[in-house]
Amino acid sequence: MEFLSGVMEKETLELRELQQIEEKGKTVKVNGAVHTIRDMGNIAFIILRKREGLLQCVYEEGVTAFSLRELKEGSAIEAEGILVHNGKAPGGIEIRLEAITLLSQPAEPMPIPIAKWKLNTSLETNLNLRPISLRNIRERAKFKIQEGIVRGFRDFLYEQGFTEIHTPKIGSKGAEGGANIFKLDYFHRPAVLAQSPQFYKQMMVGVFDRVFETAPVFRAEKHNTKRHLNEYTSLDFEMGYIDGFEDVMAMETGALQRIMEVLKQQYSGELELLKVKLPDTGRIPVVRFDEAKRLASAKYIRPIRNPYDLEPEEEILISRYFQEEYGADFVFVTHYPSKKRPFYAMDDPADPVFTLSFDCLFRGMEITTGGQRIHDYQALLDKIARRGMTTEGMDSYLSAFKHGMPPHGGLGIGLERLTMKLLGEDNVRETTLFPRDLSRLEP
Amino acid sequence: MEFLSGVMEKETLELRELQQIEEKGKTVKVNGAVHTIRDMGNIAFIILRKREGLLQCVYEEGVTAFSLRELKEGSAIEAEGILVHNGKAPGGIEIRLEAITLLSQPAEPMPIPIAKWKLNTSLETNLNLRPISLRNIRERAKFKIQEGIVRGFRDFLYEQGFTEIHTPKIGSKGAEGGANIFKLDYFHRPAVLAQSPQFYKQMMVGVFDRVFETAPVFRAEKHNTKRHLNEYTSLDFEMGYIDGFEDVMAMETGALQRIMEVLKQQYSGELELLKVKLPDTGRIPVVRFDEAKRLASAKYIRPIRNPYDLEPEEEILISRYFQEEYGADFVFVTHYPSKKRPFYAMDDPADPVFTLSFDCLFRGMEITTGGQRIHDYQALLDKIARRGMTTEGMDSYLSAFKHGMPPHGGLGIGLERLTMKLLGEDNVRETTLFPRDLSRLEP
Repeated sequence: MEFLSGVMEKETLELRELQQIEEKGKTVKVNGAVHTIRDMGNIAFIILRKREGLLQCVYEEGVTAFSLRELKEGSAIEAEGILVHNGKAPGGIEIRLEAITLLSQPAEPMPIPIAKWKLNTSLETNLNLRPISLRNIRERAKFKIQEGIVRGFRDFLYEQGFTEIHTPKIGSKGAEGGANIFKLDYFHRPAVLAQSPQFYKQMMVGVFDRVFETAPVFRAEKHNTKRHLNEYTSLDFEMGYIDGFEDVMAMETGALQRIMEVLKQQYSGELELLKVKLPDTGRIPVVRFDEAKRLASAKYIRPIRNPYDLEPEEEILISRYFQEEYGADFVFVTHYPSKKRPFYAMDDPADPVFTLSFDCLFRGMEITTGGQRIHDYQALLDKIARRGMTTEGMDSYLSAFKHGMPPHGGLGIGLERLTMKLLGEDNVRETTLFPRDLSRLEP
Repeated sequence: MEFLSGVMEKETLELRELQQIEEKGKTVKVNGAVHTIRDMGNIAFIILRKREGLLQCVYEEGVTAFSLRELKEGSAIEAEGILVHNGKAPGGIEIRLEAITLLSQPAEPMPIPIAKWKLNTSLETNLNLRPISLRNIRERAKFKIQEGIVRGFRDFLYEQGFTEIHTPKIGSKGAEGGANIFKLDYFHRPAVLAQSPQFYKQMMVGVFDRVFETAPVFRAEKHNTKRHLNEYTSLDFEMGYIDGFEDVMAMETGALQRIMEVLKQQYSGELELLKVKLPDTGRIPVVRFDEAKRLASAKYIRPIRNPYDLEPEEEILISRYFQEEYGADFVFVTHYPSKKRPFYAMDDPADPVFTLSFDCLFRGMEITTGGQRIHDYQALLDKIARRGMTTEGMDSYLSAFKHGMPPHGGLGIGLERLTMKLLGEDNVRETTLFPRDLSRLEP
């Protein structure tokens, strides 16, 4: 009988392993995709794309036992050669090729020059050719950084006593209500796709006190803007036993600090590749919604059109204000008007026109919505009634409150938006692996 | 201006913090939900449910400045008292209560006795009352262990050079084809919910070599069994530059080993609570599909009805065989018949009736399906043609192959099934937070 006892050791080495070899003239094996070929006549530079970066290989006529003509951009190869330390090569090393084994061949040439430093295509082409355009080193680095964001978020929350949950995306009713819900047929019953894990994460506060989820959410919004997606990854958490919604903002501050720390320590290569300057998360200013509007209006001489709403341009000006006045990249805007918030938001007892809620703005854009929730059963029923809503389909949600819930609050961070602003992109599709919007359902 | 600079320090202590205090007679603050009250006359034991476990508090008439009658199961409280080391108390400590502050009150008594050791309700009741039944200590422990499984899986793959991805769940076409796809209306265009991230993770192998995703998948299967769900969490990975599908199984072996290690080290409390015996992952036997059928048939005298299919009962017998003969909890069954596998599965060149694919059985049940995929563009087109399928809607998927893909393979692990078999449950709904099945769309 044959048995497996763990990962199989391979002779082929990854970039970091190669860079750690100090021995001179060592014969090594590597594999990778041919990223580009620079044919100089007698010799050729074959740049291999590996998961950790690019590796320069030197092909020499008569030395390398392989016909150069058989190699194409997109060929997958395994190669053997001498490791040479060369300060001019990317990463300080190159391989003098002795033998090449072809693992697979492309059927057609690349439709776009992915080996270029910057992918000079339109966003439309980039997205249409996504499986190919992402092979560009800078394009893929964006999503490596996105990975780091999620890792930092999760690692921080694990440490803070949060439990990770997986809540259903198909349900009978939307958490936020409204028209922007995708509907589907669930074995001849009407069903919807989750706009957020809101109800579930609140119910789970009654179980684990602190929970989080990193999962897709679905919004059937008909916005066709640079900042809206119809499906995105939401970084959600919800925490019990809070003294106020400040606890939620403080937890987000901690999470953002950890995210930047993880990026700095483990994703420095990608940050450098994209020339990303990490934002300051040491002190995040907190300002009331109405005060923020006044400050921005006064400084930038822009009349307040609607005291109960924040226009995208106001978000930009408020961010600019706190950048200029306090050097802050992030700002918490608190006390959003009650009528702009869902029914479960806790109204401010001092002035119920406003809620104990907040948005977090990052470089001019809202990346987080959060706040304290109503935890008292009767207060929740009263608010639902005052809004003229029905409790239909909310039995389970309400049962959590009926049988006792601690004071709690939470938030949702849009992963693609956070990545977008971090990388200085101006369209959220740039930082979405395979975006879904009004017109885009593929790839 | 007010600023936030990180998580706010609290006076209230968590269980582990309390257990670390050695000072005698220290006054401490705690919070939690009243799990149960045992009134003994002059004194009462108030058991608080905290996220790390239960905390015994002692209420004494005349000492505790609070009326016991105001406390109910489900009340959320903050309390102050003297920490006492008491070997008989759960976790070795208890709090002699001096003051209690009520944070919130339930409106109605618990519908089921959640404070009991075992929740003696039917599965139906358990699921109907999920937000409440999960407050039972043993019920919630299942999902803490589930968290550990996902953590171990992710941590292992990060280390192995995998990149985490987030692929869209709404798309234009299912990866596996067939009838079991949920359909929805996407702005007046027909769309489907992803049965798996198969196409996307394969495309991303061309970008990052190694990728993984832990996300929901949707199956409109009309099975109403103990092992099927219509929405579940799939632990998926896909890896390039493999020498064969054995590399995929070896990677899974490594992941399973890490998962068990993480559980042993960080979730020992929950394992003990549920009396879970971790399986042996040191050596996992590998057996061919046809051979496995023969072995089980011969030993348990059960005729082989269909040589090209594996019935659930045969999975049980094969697992039993390897448990009895080799003490193995897991077994890889390889070389599944081609016609039982999707088009992208690589056929065995030695006998194309079979594929270079596998299932992993765990204690009698399939928890993983994986294998090597076709990576050559023309070979993929040929297979699609041979199956009489159309390439419609597959343009992006096929473009990845057209422009070069390394040899690769991968797998998907059903998280809820793995949890179920690990915990010795006999219905996958027991280990699903909020299950979706033919009849269940709520809570």
